[in-house]
Amino acid sequence: MSEPKKIAILGASGYTGAELVRLIATHPMMRIVAMTAERKAGLEMAEVFPHLRHLGLPSLVKIDEVDFSDVDLCFCALPHATSQKVIKALPKTLKIVDLSADFRLRDAQEYAKWYGGKHDALGCQTEAVYGLTEFYRDAIKDARLVAGTGCNAATGQYALTPLIQVGVIDLDEIIIDLKTGVSGAGRALKEGLLHAELSEGAHPYAIGGTHRHLAEFDQEFSAIAGRPVKVQFTPTLIPANRGIVANVYVKGDAQVIYDTLAKAYADEPFIVMLPFGQAPSTRHIRGSNFCHIGVAADRIEGRAVVIAALDNLTKGSSGQALQNANLMLGIDERMGLEMAPVFP
Amino acid sequence: MSEPKKIAILGASGYTGAELVRLIATHPMMRIVAMTAERKAGLEMAEVFPHLRHLGLPSLVKIDEVDFSDVDLCFCALPHATSQKVIKALPKTLKIVDLSADFRLRDAQEYAKWYGGKHDALGCQTEAVYGLTEFYRDAIKDARLVAGTGCNAATGQYALTPLIQVGVIDLDEIIIDLKTGVSGAGRALKEGLLHAELSEGAHPYAIGGTHRHLAEFDQEFSAIAGRPVKVQFTPTLIPANRGIVANVYVKGDAQVIYDTLAKAYADEPFIVMLPFGQAPSTRHIRGSNFCHIGVAADRIEGRAVVIAALDNLTKGSSGQALQNANLMLGIDERMGLEMAPVFP
Amino acid sequence: MSEPKKIAILGASGYTGAELVRLIATHPMMRIVAMTAERKAGLEMAEVFPHLRHLGLPSLVKIDEVDFSDVDLCFCALPHATSQKVIKALPKTLKIVDLSADFRLRDAQEYAKWYGGKHDALGCQTEAVYGLTEFYRDAIKDARLVAGTGCNAATGQYALTPLIQVGVIDLDEIIIDLKTGVSGAGRALKEGLLHAELSEGAHPYAIGGTHRHLAEFDQEFSAIAGRPVKVQFTPTLIPANRGIVANVYVKGDAQVIYDTLAKAYADEPFIVMLPFGQAPSTRHIRGSNFCHIGVAADRIEGRAVVIAALDNLTKGSSGQALQNANLMLGIDERMGLEMAPVFP
Amino acid sequence: MSEPKKIAILGASGYTGAELVRLIATHPMMRIVAMTAERKAGLEMAEVFPHLRHLGLPSLVKIDEVDFSDVDLCFCALPHATSQKVIKALPKTLKIVDLSADFRLRDAQEYAKWYGGKHDALGCQTEAVYGLTEFYRDAIKDARLVAGTGCNAATGQYALTPLIQVGVIDLDEIIIDLKTGVSGAGRALKEGLLHAELSEGAHPYAIGGTHRHLAEFDQEFSAIAGRPVKVQFTPTLIPANRGIVANVYVKGDAQVIYDTLAKAYADEPFIVMLPFGQAPSTRHIRGSNFCHIGVAADRIEGRAVVIAALDNLTKGSSGQALQNANLMLGIDERMGLEMAPVFP
Repeated sequence: MSEPKKIAILGASGYTGAELVRLIATHPMMRIVAMTAERKAGLEMAEVFPHLRHLGLPSLVKIDEVDFSDVDLCFCALPHATSQKVIKALPKTLKIVDLSADFRLRDAQEYAKWYGGKHDALGCQTEAVYGLTEFYRDAIKDARLVAGTGCNAATGQYALTPLIQVGVIDLDEIIIDLKTGVSGAGRALKEGLLHAELSEGAHPYAIGGTHRHLAEFDQEFSAIAGRPVKVQFTPTLIPANRGIVANVYVKGDAQVIYDTLAKAYADEPFIVMLPFGQAPSTRHIRGSNFCHIGVAADRIEGRAVVIAALDNLTKGSSGQALQNANLMLGIDERMGLEMAPVFP
Repeated sequence: MSEPKKIAILGASGYTGAELVRLIATHPMMRIVAMTAERKAGLEMAEVFPHLRHLGLPSLVKIDEVDFSDVDLCFCALPHATSQKVIKALPKTLKIVDLSADFRLRDAQEYAKWYGGKHDALGCQTEAVYGLTEFYRDAIKDARLVAGTGCNAATGQYALTPLIQVGVIDLDEIIIDLKTGVSGAGRALKEGLLHAELSEGAHPYAIGGTHRHLAEFDQEFSAIAGRPVKVQFTPTLIPANRGIVANVYVKGDAQVIYDTLAKAYADEPFIVMLPFGQAPSTRHIRGSNFCHIGVAADRIEGRAVVIAALDNLTKGSSGQALQNANLMLGIDERMGLEMAPVFP
Repeated sequence: MSEPKKIAILGASGYTGAELVRLIATHPMMRIVAMTAERKAGLEMAEVFPHLRHLGLPSLVKIDEVDFSDVDLCFCALPHATSQKVIKALPKTLKIVDLSADFRLRDAQEYAKWYGGKHDALGCQTEAVYGLTEFYRDAIKDARLVAGTGCNAATGQYALTPLIQVGVIDLDEIIIDLKTGVSGAGRALKEGLLHAELSEGAHPYAIGGTHRHLAEFDQEFSAIAGRPVKVQFTPTLIPANRGIVANVYVKGDAQVIYDTLAKAYADEPFIVMLPFGQAPSTRHIRGSNFCHIGVAADRIEGRAVVIAALDNLTKGSSGQALQNANLMLGIDERMGLEMAPVFP
Repeated sequence: MSEPKKIAILGASGYTGAELVRLIATHPMMRIVAMTAERKAGLEMAEVFPHLRHLGLPSLVKIDEVDFSDVDLCFCALPHATSQKVIKALPKTLKIVDLSADFRLRDAQEYAKWYGGKHDALGCQTEAVYGLTEFYRDAIKDARLVAGTGCNAATGQYALTPLIQVGVIDLDEIIIDLKTGVSGAGRALKEGLLHAELSEGAHPYAIGGTHRHLAEFDQEFSAIAGRPVKVQFTPTLIPANRGIVANVYVKGDAQVIYDTLAKAYADEPFIVMLPFGQAPSTRHIRGSNFCHIGVAADRIEGRAVVIAALDNLTKGSSGQALQNANLMLGIDERMGLEMAPVFP
């Protein structure tokens, strides 16, 4: 067996950083050699995330203390806007998987529209490969920089992309109603993320088509369809830490839709089709890299609902990142990701 | 001040029964004189619901032990199908508010289609008034038998009924995506209602247009529109005990939609319109009889989302029942129902 | 009926402030005439707490904008240390119920030891009456300034005070192991209060006898016993918003302990003794002013466990404050507080 | 690498059965060849536990359909009382790890006292090795039948056993106050396990020394001490699915206690000592086989609190079982168990 690859994690003090450590901790072909957290530099990971105390991890340092010449691949789990500044300054030959929103949009104007301000690393933006593994696998294998997708954006695309590719649904009548756990919002100190505010409640937000992940839907669906596609999208925050489930309302033949998805995902290791007519649940993918998809015909003819569920921190973010990193390093893409979901 | 009205509660050992007791406990014009629970007859309410221990409540008895000649109004919180048998046998002059599904549908064939089997009390079915207070207020005042609505059905109708009445939305393009807490399913011993199954998860169910509350949408919306109206409806169970929030997708002008709802509910004591563009949350109506409604324009022209939130056990069930009972007994309909929501 | 009393609430933007508004909203003899929140001055309460939107409340102002000459009683729900500065400057004749820790300790040195720093209003500190209604009722009736108790301190005292008064337990062998919901920590933006940190976890904190509420136990128990009494006390944060349940381990005869408590609380409107051997649960007092107490004999002779449960925001804080305010204003102490617990 | 061992799981339709499958699914040296569930025989595991759908598992069968001649080791995750009947009838040479309570007590009279009724397999009872790995490792290696411990019993023993062995605490003054998630109660259909009953509440149960896991404390602690040791023990159900945290109150020198535990667990792969004075949390061991232990001195001299946290389904049950099975099969005991905890 060859030597494990040397891995750096920038921004290890957030939830996606912790999730990367959790997954890589038992990955036979990776070894974490550096972890950074600007404000928490000098601390041990055990102080920031006590659940990782048993691991022999390097101490947290600042980015400029890392010797990147000794790193095979670098995960960037930094905040949006920060990521582009940091990545611009990294060695141009370093393999990078970015988990921020900074390199998801190929069009600088779209980036400016949805995220505000000018992009700081336009060169890298062009170079970046969109990280939805199942649809960009070949490009990811050869990429130097892969842009992790939005967790909501990933969920919606798993339900819709093959349907748009094959052309079996009405492109002007797509509604994504998505329920999401709270860890997707990160470890930020916001009133709306307190337990006392969230527990026992459900709260639609970014209503009316204002959520930034719409930019990814627009970009990807329009590219596939070869013409502009605009979906309607409402996320609702629910009192759970992990998990996204999207009810996607489409017009088309439900059986054809099911068969199209089943065919597209037949050989995918992490996409699981449920029997026709069954709905997935977030509790059945929790803590894992699996995505469950169900399809049902509506009582109104010509309509269907496609339901996709995944764990926002795993398949929607850090698990996806690891799957891509495996590909970029020539490792079996499933490695370190096959642990079954945690239920109950 | 006149004498308090004498109240009986049939089926007091379920959640809607307990909620009735909670609300009536501090109602100045009502006194509970009899409570029944067939399998728990002989027990004190404190043994079945310890949170009601401080109240001087009558012991639980069987229905045939109740002297209805001394009762002014009777709440029936019995299971579906049982309710019709019991109500059929009650004195024909007794005022009744039924919380089951048995008298919601005016058409015996629709009842048979959605609930299976023949209806046992067809006479009462015709007589019953549909209990959505805001739209049947006058009929409820004069009614002998009022049929409480489904909690999901109430939520959807609060979002939609005025819009269909005035004709400001496309009747063929209505989608109701609704999130509901678990108490709506009652105190039944089902695996899917265990804490270990539900907590930290979100689970769409009755997908494809199979939920029984669709029968109420069909009946009410078609009656108002004067032609068949069929909506698409998916409920999702979320890990919360109380609360429903419905994202209702419609085609129409968002501002017109907002104004129509605001006008319709201007004088309603329990329906609260949020400022345009804001979304309600179940945490802000918990434990109360209030329903919050928000409207936002989508980024796609000609589309809007109407969002309604209420507590399934209060405004969606027992609070609604009490509001109707107040009307039937000539009491101010707000009495016993003005307690503010419990937050956090 | 006489005129409602005019009420001011200082610090209305925290959870205890919101709970005061919730309770007073349906209080027949009180009217809120002023509400303050320094950083949120200028906002409507509906923007800070949307669940109170339906009430016609005064706008939030700064404290120095309030005309206290028109106020009958003032609740101070301000942070510790701030409260003493504010109360010192208020009119000397104004009736005040303070919910902070600033006036709980009669000894300035004890205050300095547990809370750090010198007390800013030593005069008021001497004047203040400790607000545990059941044990200071007469003094509270005549008081100008009442100091609300700590929510954990209240729970422990309900279990222990009558036992120490009568002398039926070993004073040197008392252990209070207490589980508390998160709202007791307030609306502060702390990492440890995020939903993602708290949900699905249980976390003992302030271990080893460092929690500030110990100062109240020391003061009150020693005063009653006439000699120093020191208890052992560990709180554990649990994933619930409201509710405290304390398992109190004592040495003594369980039946004598039960009888002593039952006798002490026989006429108390809000203290409910469970049958001997039964344990209370926080879910059965949620959102209410009731405190449930149970006693069981241990299998080891001469030992017992006393268990007390209450809602930290109601009986442990704002409900207690209202009960005291009723007494100070010559109103029936139960008024506005008799709503039954919210379950489920 | 040698051939994977062939594993049977009896009682695969409960939570501990599902947890065994989850852990073994990625175990490089084990392969599940048979799974049984009497009432669900004929079903696929995906129908009973959809989160295991992606695995190629054998269908559920009845026990008498299993060919045990082809099985290397059998896990019994059957209900108490059933397990003894089944195990009695299994081949006498088959290696068995039992997860029920049936073989935990070495004394038939103690079994009868705590569990009621006569034991059906007295022979096996004598042969069984108590499965607390860290203290019975050598015996487990050579055992044919290992009895999994109670999950609460394991937690308390991790906090106390080394202290009793070395003799650094007062044996007559031990109190275990333990908080437990709900999955420990299994997938049984009981009213008290419904989400609507448990969520947002905390409920002490089996108070006064009536919990059956006390039998294990009595047996083990008395054996170590060489004289009867009786502890006081109260469990409290909290609204979480997984996790136990025990606050153990002892008399002794806190630093000596800490050092004793640190020394005892120095080489243990799954027992993690926190720095002195820190408290563990269930959220930091969730879904993993790790047990975190903290110690603090109380403000009262000569007293300390020892706090232990573990996941009841993993280290407290199925993870423990797998660790023991590894030992019995000559596999590294850590195999399949090193996945880091799932947080958040």
